[in-house]
Amino acid sequence: MNIERLKREIARNFGTPAVVVDLDIVERNIARVQAMCDAAGIGNRPHIKTHKSPVLAAMQRDAGASGITCQKLGEAEVMADGGLDDIFISYNLLGEEKIARLARLLRRARVSVAADNPVVVEGLGRLEADRPLDVLVECDTGRKRAGVETPGEAIALARDIASRPGLRFAGFMIYPPEDAIAATQAFLDEATQGVRAAGLEVRVVSNGGTPNLANLGKIRGVTEHRAGTCIFNDRMMMACGAARLEDCALTVHATVVSRAASDRGILDSGSKTLTSDRPPDLDGYGMILEYPQARIAKFSEEHGFLDLSASNRRPEIGEVVRVIPNHVCVVSNMVDRFVTVRGDEIVGELPVAARGKLT
Amino acid sequence: MNIERLKREIARNFGTPAVVVDLDIVERNIARVQAMCDAAGIGNRPHIKTHKSPVLAAMQRDAGASGITCQKLGEAEVMADGGLDDIFISYNLLGEEKIARLARLLRRARVSVAADNPVVVEGLGRLEADRPLDVLVECDTGRKRAGVETPGEAIALARDIASRPGLRFAGFMIYPPEDAIAATQAFLDEATQGVRAAGLEVRVVSNGGTPNLANLGKIRGVTEHRAGTCIFNDRMMMACGAARLEDCALTVHATVVSRAASDRGILDSGSKTLTSDRPPDLDGYGMILEYPQARIAKFSEEHGFLDLSASNRRPEIGEVVRVIPNHVCVVSNMVDRFVTVRGDEIVGELPVAARGKLT
Repeated sequence: MNIERLKREIARNFGTPAVVVDLDIVERNIARVQAMCDAAGIGNRPHIKTHKSPVLAAMQRDAGASGITCQKLGEAEVMADGGLDDIFISYNLLGEEKIARLARLLRRARVSVAADNPVVVEGLGRLEADRPLDVLVECDTGRKRAGVETPGEAIALARDIASRPGLRFAGFMIYPPEDAIAATQAFLDEATQGVRAAGLEVRVVSNGGTPNLANLGKIRGVTEHRAGTCIFNDRMMMACGAARLEDCALTVHATVVSRAASDRGILDSGSKTLTSDRPPDLDGYGMILEYPQARIAKFSEEHGFLDLSASNRRPEIGEVVRVIPNHVCVVSNMVDRFVTVRGDEIVGELPVAARGKLT
Repeated sequence: MNIERLKREIARNFGTPAVVVDLDIVERNIARVQAMCDAAGIGNRPHIKTHKSPVLAAMQRDAGASGITCQKLGEAEVMADGGLDDIFISYNLLGEEKIARLARLLRRARVSVAADNPVVVEGLGRLEADRPLDVLVECDTGRKRAGVETPGEAIALARDIASRPGLRFAGFMIYPPEDAIAATQAFLDEATQGVRAAGLEVRVVSNGGTPNLANLGKIRGVTEHRAGTCIFNDRMMMACGAARLEDCALTVHATVVSRAASDRGILDSGSKTLTSDRPPDLDGYGMILEYPQARIAKFSEEHGFLDLSASNRRPEIGEVVRVIPNHVCVVSNMVDRFVTVRGDEIVGELPVAARGKLT
C-alpha cells in the first residue's frame, strides 16, 4: 500500500483535516458482525449513530441486517428518505412536535420506538397513524441511564402500552453493562413471565452495544442486537478488546502546522474535528498511526497539542498524519462528508446525511 | 418575561434540544465589548469562531469592529460570501489546496494571516495574488500552543516574510495567558525593537481572548483585540469572571425524557449537543437555569445524565429546561441553525453558515 501517496492526494484534493473512511474495512466489519449474529441466531439491527449515512445503512441491510436503529427521529427521517425501512428509534420520544413527525414518518416506513415511562407512552398514545406502533419497554439492568429499573415497572408499562389503541407492546430493549449478564437474565426472565401472565407476547428482546457483541447468545430470549461503533471502530473499541487496529475504518488525516519546540507540536485538528471525548482509561485524545508514542495531550477547537517527549521520531511541519479517534461516532457528527477510500485509492466523498439531527 | 410560554413555543415549533440565542443579549454584549475597545483606543476584531454567522459578524462590524478574525479558511470564505471584508485568519495555513483557496479569496476580500514558522511562510510566498498578503508573526508568550517562542525567532520570521515578493510583514499576533502581561510586554518590546532595526514597521499587534478583555490597554503596543466568546458567553466565562449570568446569550433548551429513579434523570441533550468540553475547574457539563443544584454528571451522545441528589426541587418527565453550556463555541458548531429570540419572543432561525468548516 502506498499510504504516503494517498495522504498527499487527500491533502491536495480535500485539504486537512479530512475524515477518511476505508470502505474495504467497512465491508469487512459489516460482514464480520453479520456473521456473528447469524451464528448466534440473533437478528442484526445496526445502530446508524456511528455513520449517519443511508448508503452505509443500506450496505448493512444488504449484508443481512433485519432493520436499523436510530437514536433520533431526525435520523430516522433521513434513513427513510434513503429507502431504509424497519427503523427502531431507541429513545423516549416526547412532545407534540415529535409525535406529529412520528405520525408522518409512520406513513412511509415501518417504525418502532422505545419508552421507559408512562408520560412517553401517553404521548405515543395520542399518535394518529394508520397502523399500530410497536413500542418496546426500555429496561435498565445496570447502566443507570434510561430504562425502568425493575421487572415490575416493565410489566406495568407493557400493560399500559397494550391497553392503548394504536400501540402494540413489542418486547424489551436492554443495553446492559457487559458484565451484567446474570442480572440482565434475571430481570428479563421475571419481566417476560409477568407480561405473559398478562396475556402479552414478547416478540422482541433487543440488546445493544459493540462491546456486548462478545456476549451474543449468552442472554436467553434476546432476539436482536443493535451495535453501532463496530462498522468503524475506534480507540475505545480497541481498548476494550472489541476491535483490532486493522478493524479501524475511520481515520482523521491531520497536518502538523507548528513545531515551536522540539518536544511539542500542533496538529490542525482539535476538538472541532476529534471532539473532547476521552474516557478515563484512555491517555490523550487519539492515536497517531505514524507516531504511536506521540501523545495528543490537549485540544483547543482547532489545535491538537502534541506532546512528542516520548517519541524518538518526530513529525516535521507540513507532515500529514492519520489519527484514530477515541470515539468515532462523535467524529462522524462533526463533518458533512466522509472522504472514502479503498486501501490506498480514493473512491470519493460520502455525505453524512443524518449528521447533526438533534431532534 | 414569560419564559415558560417561550419554552413551550420553542418546543412546539422546533422540538428539543434547541440551541437558542437571545439577540437582545447579543446586542448588549457586542456594544459592551466595542465600548471597552473604544475606551482603550484599541481596534475590535471579533473572532467569529463562537457564532460562525455572517449575520452576527455584520452586527459586530456595524457596531464598530474594524474587521473580523477567523480560524479557518473555510470560515473566511463563508464570511466573504456574506459581505464581510478585512478578515484575519489567525492560523498557520499549509498545503497547496489551502494556498490555492487563499489566492482565490484574496481576489474578493482583504485578508491577512498568521504564521509561526518558515515552512508556512515559504508556502504563502508561492501565493499568486494581485495584492500583497499581510502576514503577522504569531508569538507564544506563555500559552505553549502555536507561536514562535523567542523574540529572536519572531524577528527572523518577520525578515523572512518581508523578503518575499507578495508578502508584507504586518506585525505580531499574541494570545497570552491572562497573567502573562509582563512576559508578553518584554517579548513584544524586544521583537519590535528587532524588526525596527531591520527597517520593518510593526503596524499591527493583535491580542486575543475574552478573558484578556480585562487586560485591554495594559500591554503597550497592542493595536487590536480578537475576542470570540464574549458575544454569547458561557459557564467558562462566568467561572473566570468575564461574564455574568445575564450576559449569557445562548442556552440549550432540553427536555427531561426519563426519571427512572428519584435522584436521577435523563436530558435529551448529550455530547452531540452540549459536547464533552469540561475544563477541570467546572463541575459537570452545563448549568441548568431552572435547577442550578442539579448536576449534569455524564453524557452519552444523546443522553445527559442528571444527578438530582443535591436538588430539592426536581424536574418532571416532559419538562423543558434551559442549559448554559460549559463552552459555547463548540455548541454553535453542532447545529445548522440557531433559534433566535428577544426576551420571551421568538424571532426566527439563523443559519450557522460557517459551521463545520474543518479546512
